[in-house]
Amino acid sequence: MISVDTKLIALLGNPLGQSISNRMQNAAFHAHNLDYCYFPIETRPGTLKPVVDAIRCMNFAGFGVTKPDKVNIIELLDELDPLAGMIGAVNTVDIRNGKLIGYNTDGQGGVRTLKSTLKRNVAQESYFCFGAGGCARALCYTLADQGVQSVTMTDLYDEAAETLAKEINAKFGSVAKFIPFADRASVKRAFSESGVVMNCSGVGMAPHLEESPIDPDAFRSGQLAFDATYNPEKTQFLKDAERSGANILNGLGMLVHQGALQFKIWTGLDEPSELMFREAEQALADAKKA
Amino acid sequence: MISVDTKLIALLGNPLGQSISNRMQNAAFHAHNLDYCYFPIETRPGTLKPVVDAIRCMNFAGFGVTKPDKVNIIELLDELDPLAGMIGAVNTVDIRNGKLIGYNTDGQGGVRTLKSTLKRNVAQESYFCFGAGGCARALCYTLADQGVQSVTMTDLYDEAAETLAKEINAKFGSVAKFIPFADRASVKRAFSESGVVMNCSGVGMAPHLEESPIDPDAFRSGQLAFDATYNPEKTQFLKDAERSGANILNGLGMLVHQGALQFKIWTGLDEPSELMFREAEQALADAKKA
Repeated sequence: MISVDTKLIALLGNPLGQSISNRMQNAAFHAHNLDYCYFPIETRPGTLKPVVDAIRCMNFAGFGVTKPDKVNIIELLDELDPLAGMIGAVNTVDIRNGKLIGYNTDGQGGVRTLKSTLKRNVAQESYFCFGAGGCARALCYTLADQGVQSVTMTDLYDEAAETLAKEINAKFGSVAKFIPFADRASVKRAFSESGVVMNCSGVGMAPHLEESPIDPDAFRSGQLAFDATYNPEKTQFLKDAERSGANILNGLGMLVHQGALQFKIWTGLDEPSELMFREAEQALADAKKA
Repeated sequence: MISVDTKLIALLGNPLGQSISNRMQNAAFHAHNLDYCYFPIETRPGTLKPVVDAIRCMNFAGFGVTKPDKVNIIELLDELDPLAGMIGAVNTVDIRNGKLIGYNTDGQGGVRTLKSTLKRNVAQESYFCFGAGGCARALCYTLADQGVQSVTMTDLYDEAAETLAKEINAKFGSVAKFIPFADRASVKRAFSESGVVMNCSGVGMAPHLEESPIDPDAFRSGQLAFDATYNPEKTQFLKDAERSGANILNGLGMLVHQGALQFKIWTGLDEPSELMFREAEQALADAKKA
């Protein structure tokens, strides 16, 4: 039961009916015996500001932010972590001494899940990224921030990928390379030559489950293929990669780790990542049954 | 766990740490297997409006209001129940089709607890009331609204009691009578002659546990003595009444019934009053132990 002492944490966004963060975060609070309550608040056009104004007046430790509010939230904050500022999106807000401070743990969550699977050091790999939207921005910026030397990117919207590459290079030197989407031969060559290939484009999600952004024969054994999606569990992109002998990784680990990092920001405690991973898997299994 | 479908209900006021409404309401929702969550939001100067603005944007079924916000809330509402308008205070807000509608169930809660104990019809009794603050206003207005013919009132602040009596008489005819506080002989005579004597003045609460607003020998056998306080369980007023052979009733029933009526407003369902009464008693027992 929520008392006057309970620390509240909301997730803001819409829709939130399918979110498994509720299960993950509350399981983590429960495991640490913390009097915290995490709950979803679905935003609608015009409601983000009044909700945030009220959060400032209540016993909130912070809140999470997801689509479509990750960019709009920024103007309502008091401070912004530099990485979140570069990415241009916030998924985590911490409240310290009444100030709202924005962070982005999406990219770090992605890098953590890559690290957990990669045989070599993250910084020593070469990366290829499909997509230049919010997920790709968070991941590519964070990789550059962690000292990665090469990230090649392409997007159906050339301008988005070209802009992202330019921005990253302006901050970190010549790390990012843009390839126009229509230059399929160059895309395929760069893809095959990369140690880690990432699909952050959303291609392969329902209802287009059979689609993949790359030819099946572009994968090679020894690559790590990552898809930011976790539903379906194995996209066509990952199926093709697996058949080619590549290691595969879906987006569930990224989701869990971004949430685990949020837990750490809100509570100051070590995040129980494994417990949160198990709870996330269970929540997905329960959703399938329902 | 709170989901996007959970109906939220808050209690607004300050302080709320000792409130047992949280236990009562959540027990009632649980008993009805309702996906509702009731929780306290402590207000501070300037926070009532932003909190109410946000409540309008979220999945709230309504909210409760207690000290010090029962009067200030009115200007933030869309509609006002006539009885609440007369009392000039709101303890219950229902949200219907996005509109905030204010009610006052305090007086009805008090009348219900009197009804449960009185041998005769509520309207046939004569009443004496110490106090003319929020509690007394709710109770006296509701008694008049239910057809009671005689309510005599006095207050340390003569003006408050005189004003209340005048207001009630303007609405309901010659029901209320005011006696100046200093006219102790008239106070005592009217008190002794009344069938139901009520202490809504707060006199006898901590730290002045030995105080009572009336001489011990003013009570008579056959009276019903009611004290709006439930902490202490038995005030000096009730102790004196009991020794004189009067029936006694403390404020717990009023608290439970005002909450039960809130439950009915918010859910549209029959209120589980007895279960709420047991939960309230248990909450008080737990608080004593802690």
